[in-house]
Amino acid sequence: MRICVINPNSSKSVTDHLRNTLNKIKRDDCELTVICPEHGPVSIESAYDETIAAFYVMDLVKKANEDGYDAIVLACFSDPGLDAAKEISSIPVIGIEEATLHMAAMLGHKFSIMTGMERRIPTRELHITIHGLSQSYASSPALEMSVLEMDSNPQKAKEKIIELARKAVKEDRAEVIILGCAGLAGYSEDIERELGVVVLDPSSVALKVAEAMVDLGLHHSKVGRFSFPPAKEIK
Amino acid sequence: MRICVINPNSSKSVTDHLRNTLNKIKRDDCELTVICPEHGPVSIESAYDETIAAFYVMDLVKKANEDGYDAIVLACFSDPGLDAAKEISSIPVIGIEEATLHMAAMLGHKFSIMTGMERRIPTRELHITIHGLSQSYASSPALEMSVLEMDSNPQKAKEKIIELARKAVKEDRAEVIILGCAGLAGYSEDIERELGVVVLDPSSVALKVAEAMVDLGLHHSKVGRFSFPPAKEIK
Amino acid sequence: MRICVINPNSSKSVTDHLRNTLNKIKRDDCELTVICPEHGPVSIESAYDETIAAFYVMDLVKKANEDGYDAIVLACFSDPGLDAAKEISSIPVIGIEEATLHMAAMLGHKFSIMTGMERRIPTRELHITIHGLSQSYASSPALEMSVLEMDSNPQKAKEKIIELARKAVKEDRAEVIILGCAGLAGYSEDIERELGVVVLDPSSVALKVAEAMVDLGLHHSKVGRFSFPPAKEIK
Amino acid sequence: MRICVINPNSSKSVTDHLRNTLNKIKRDDCELTVICPEHGPVSIESAYDETIAAFYVMDLVKKANEDGYDAIVLACFSDPGLDAAKEISSIPVIGIEEATLHMAAMLGHKFSIMTGMERRIPTRELHITIHGLSQSYASSPALEMSVLEMDSNPQKAKEKIIELARKAVKEDRAEVIILGCAGLAGYSEDIERELGVVVLDPSSVALKVAEAMVDLGLHHSKVGRFSFPPAKEIK
Amino acid sequence: MRICVINPNSSKSVTDHLRNTLNKIKRDDCELTVICPEHGPVSIESAYDETIAAFYVMDLVKKANEDGYDAIVLACFSDPGLDAAKEISSIPVIGIEEATLHMAAMLGHKFSIMTGMERRIPTRELHITIHGLSQSYASSPALEMSVLEMDSNPQKAKEKIIELARKAVKEDRAEVIILGCAGLAGYSEDIERELGVVVLDPSSVALKVAEAMVDLGLHHSKVGRFSFPPAKEIK
Amino acid sequence: MRICVINPNSSKSVTDHLRNTLNKIKRDDCELTVICPEHGPVSIESAYDETIAAFYVMDLVKKANEDGYDAIVLACFSDPGLDAAKEISSIPVIGIEEATLHMAAMLGHKFSIMTGMERRIPTRELHITIHGLSQSYASSPALEMSVLEMDSNPQKAKEKIIELARKAVKEDRAEVIILGCAGLAGYSEDIERELGVVVLDPSSVALKVAEAMVDLGLHHSKVGRFSFPPAKEIK
Repeated sequence: MRICVINPNSSKSVTDHLRNTLNKIKRDDCELTVICPEHGPVSIESAYDETIAAFYVMDLVKKANEDGYDAIVLACFSDPGLDAAKEISSIPVIGIEEATLHMAAMLGHKFSIMTGMERRIPTRELHITIHGLSQSYASSPALEMSVLEMDSNPQKAKEKIIELARKAVKEDRAEVIILGCAGLAGYSEDIERELGVVVLDPSSVALKVAEAMVDLGLHHSKVGRFSFPPAKEIK
Repeated sequence: MRICVINPNSSKSVTDHLRNTLNKIKRDDCELTVICPEHGPVSIESAYDETIAAFYVMDLVKKANEDGYDAIVLACFSDPGLDAAKEISSIPVIGIEEATLHMAAMLGHKFSIMTGMERRIPTRELHITIHGLSQSYASSPALEMSVLEMDSNPQKAKEKIIELARKAVKEDRAEVIILGCAGLAGYSEDIERELGVVVLDPSSVALKVAEAMVDLGLHHSKVGRFSFPPAKEIK
Repeated sequence: MRICVINPNSSKSVTDHLRNTLNKIKRDDCELTVICPEHGPVSIESAYDETIAAFYVMDLVKKANEDGYDAIVLACFSDPGLDAAKEISSIPVIGIEEATLHMAAMLGHKFSIMTGMERRIPTRELHITIHGLSQSYASSPALEMSVLEMDSNPQKAKEKIIELARKAVKEDRAEVIILGCAGLAGYSEDIERELGVVVLDPSSVALKVAEAMVDLGLHHSKVGRFSFPPAKEIK
Repeated sequence: MRICVINPNSSKSVTDHLRNTLNKIKRDDCELTVICPEHGPVSIESAYDETIAAFYVMDLVKKANEDGYDAIVLACFSDPGLDAAKEISSIPVIGIEEATLHMAAMLGHKFSIMTGMERRIPTRELHITIHGLSQSYASSPALEMSVLEMDSNPQKAKEKIIELARKAVKEDRAEVIILGCAGLAGYSEDIERELGVVVLDPSSVALKVAEAMVDLGLHHSKVGRFSFPPAKEIK
Repeated sequence: MRICVINPNSSKSVTDHLRNTLNKIKRDDCELTVICPEHGPVSIESAYDETIAAFYVMDLVKKANEDGYDAIVLACFSDPGLDAAKEISSIPVIGIEEATLHMAAMLGHKFSIMTGMERRIPTRELHITIHGLSQSYASSPALEMSVLEMDSNPQKAKEKIIELARKAVKEDRAEVIILGCAGLAGYSEDIERELGVVVLDPSSVALKVAEAMVDLGLHHSKVGRFSFPPAKEIK
Repeated sequence: MRICVINPNSSKSVTDHLRNTLNKIKRDDCELTVICPEHGPVSIESAYDETIAAFYVMDLVKKANEDGYDAIVLACFSDPGLDAAKEISSIPVIGIEEATLHMAAMLGHKFSIMTGMERRIPTRELHITIHGLSQSYASSPALEMSVLEMDSNPQKAKEKIIELARKAVKEDRAEVIILGCAGLAGYSEDIERELGVVVLDPSSVALKVAEAMVDLGLHHSKVGRFSFPPAKEIK
């Protein structure tokens, strides 16, 4: 099977990091392409960033369909453009947030989402509402580090996450920890060892869900919400 | 006061229709500008259309801020790019869907939303969930007419709406009817006379809410969810 | 347009204060009458007070309809008798709590309501549930001051509000602050300047919503929940 | 034990009917007083009726406390003035709607409430929301008979209820039927025999819950929501 | 009337304690049998314990039906096997958790549940969701004592409860306290005296609800969810 | 990897059918064991059946842990004993209902669950509530066929499903169809071809989710809700 992973931000280094991480866990029978758009924000930390990134992702989604991929993974924890991508795609599109929230809901009573900046907590709450998983949601502790900082100082990010996750387990009774920051793909095992609870790396979870969907011959329903957009003039 | 109404689709004729409608109800002390982006879809009937339109709306929002307007009305019933617009704007941005849903919730026990195509009903349900107004929501009857068709055959659209609204009142116990299709701005009075229930034209409602906000010196909170996006490289 | 503001408590001084505040922000084309019932409690701080006040409000609502007003504003943050008032009124009746909660939901992710006494927090929670706005609700910090105390010591009330609002922003992530105590109408600007977040004065918000409704020719639906009560003997 | 049943409407005949019904099922050790206010509407079919009735009920609640009763049953299915009554009462006050909704939730998956007029369905939905029992709620079929009509033509009312209840069981999957109209107290057995499902007469349920509470020495909590109202001038 | 109380754990001493407590409050016309299964866990502190206990409870439920009892009380706060028991029973089966949660919802704005071990808090939250009473739920403070410990050191348990309940009232605004641990039946009065809020002993509440149901001739609906299981081979 | 599929009913023929179906889709590197308990009901169509089946499943779960399996799939759409199984297991336990509901929520706006008997619709609703997926739930159309009948007349079952699924798509706007009856494993492709919407076979979905979890080294959290039960005497 061939899976196309689209990193919606335009950062080559994040894309490279993601490729390395996912290549280690992909199945042998899975051929992986990990790309990002040429244009758009180098990190996604606001609704504005999401809006710009979603626009540039559209062409990559179309191309992955034309190039005969079996599935697309959209690798930003805010799932920017996910609904639109599903509409214009006949192959399954898996958002890493969506896949991870549902997986987390099966693995423990409540989960907490490690978040970059406090300003994004409302976004997390909004997406939990959209996915209907409020009763599985514990909290979204904020590292107060930008994606850039996490990238340049991964050790500090890891320590901060361990501190916040420990607090979430104790005070919010989180049983599962989600690393809601793409820049941290690949660190979940270290953190899990340290904390003793389940830690989810969203990109990894989504890749495995994608492989499972391809195995099952599944795709999102093309009836209703994700049906192809009506043809029209786009100036 | 000066209010900038942005029609997110790129249709000049819809924009003209909107301008005519709103000019009739604006206050004397309100200077109105009604514009649309040069690029993007000529109508918005899918998440894909929303994604493209939201991108092109961003520059108009920035410009309205620079040009010293007092408020912005985003005039498409799906409120495409609303959160991003609020982030990059220091003047209030009023989405016509958001303003109308909240107004409708005050005017009756439940409301129904007249919708263009059945494929958009899930979007209506999603937005109701996001705004938390499920207990005020009755239904979203679909005209099964594209925006183009409504535009070219307004009489048919009006008849269809009256038929569907009558059914919504009787079967879904709707007490308020929302005209959830921008192309129908200006027809609410006719329909109200026919049906005897309250009919809301979203653009009109939003303009009046905008005027009220300017009077009150209100804007959305710039703390948290709608704070300005962090500065960063956008390729 | 002519708007009748009914203060449901029987305090002349609160009514005078309200009149002064609203006269400053009303539109030029708006003729304002601000009244209170002769009988009933001098402040409203319990369901019992609400029950008594609602009774005496009914006659004022009927009179405002007979006297040809265009809209009624019910100016107590618990909206006592609102549903009954809408039933017996053909002109719009705007509850200041209802109007303010919906406005607040548009202006930020979550709001906190400054409350007089802790014993009224359950009432706030109940009303949030009734209006379906739980996901926009942060908290209801209590000043632990009676309406009388606020009136006699406004400086202390203001300081207490600033302290509680600051805490709500920090700990409950409130982005909007609602002054849920009628006695404080007119102080929102001061507090907003101090805190940097949006502060809503419910009476002012409701008056502007009322003006907007009159402009739009809107009223609550007389079909269903707010239809006129069946005629009957009242002993 | 001594229980005071207050019928909030001012109809002597409804009060007599209620007394007869409840005297048949009260325990031997229970001394029952069934009264109604001198003033107020003769039936309760609107929020306006509720507002007027609640006012006149207050004095009866105070008197029942002074007269040393052990519990009060408020016998109108809309529970008018229930919160206020609990505030001013140190003995338990049991609303017949409240008690019956909770009982019904234990006896079947979903219940339907037989309702007088269609205009009151929103009230039923509102109260279900307030009590948090949405997932146990099936529907509120309306007889389209006024309380007066039911009283003068009980046979027609009974037939109509059987027809509507049968439909609710089949179409809404109701497993429990609530007779949400005080005028029908005493008919539940007949209807149950006819339909084979559980039928609840709210006044009877509430009386038995009241007896149980007295046996347990229970009353509503006087901390928080139902604490005594602050003393104040009532003009 | 004859009521059969089934303690789902196999501890004779807990069963004896329960019998003593309930005999003190049962009505004179109520003949009480309090039993437990021969097999199964001696206390119920996990879903695993519930699963085993529920199995052994089934035969006792069948036998109580055959022996002509009028009602069954299932006396473990997790209500293990309640749905299955209702299915196989034509006489009412009252779960002590179910009955107490609904009673608590009538007696105050929010309740807190005193819980043995922290690991069971998710179970409490799950059951609150199932019964739809989230808006009446304050918290589930954990004693961190096993049932065995509570039994051997009731004084310590009582002190711990008073400490936790006081905190729940202050911090979570609980107005009602539920003793969610069977081993503590009979202590509610002491604790109520100490705290001044309403304290519910679930077994006592359930017995009184059972007596009320028998008086009313009520049972759970045998249509739908609790209809008799289809006959089949059980190997 | 080695996965143990436990069919909770005691029917050899259903177990054989399940084994055949799953062997066709399992990965080459997956060694599959499909078993059922010796005792318990031959099909699961009531809470009573679930209670008995859950008891006998416990030993098989323990044995799969002792035998070094990597994951357990619990293959009955009511997930009987799932929480208890997770508690006593250190390897992941995947309930086919749980896994399928979460997968369905990603693949379309709403799903419908094909159900054997109407009496089980409340169970479906209850489980949807427990998993928090109400906004993705369309309906549970009932075939009104017992498991035995489906088994002996699969052609009739298939036709009935196609009829009901077509109705669910049209009337309830289902976009995804779940075959909520174990006996129908393996027919999803045929039905999907016929209907053009996505059809999910729960056992297949769960197996693939199990494979994905094993690949990721994931298991449910052993902190909190699913921690090991406290050791105790079980008589």
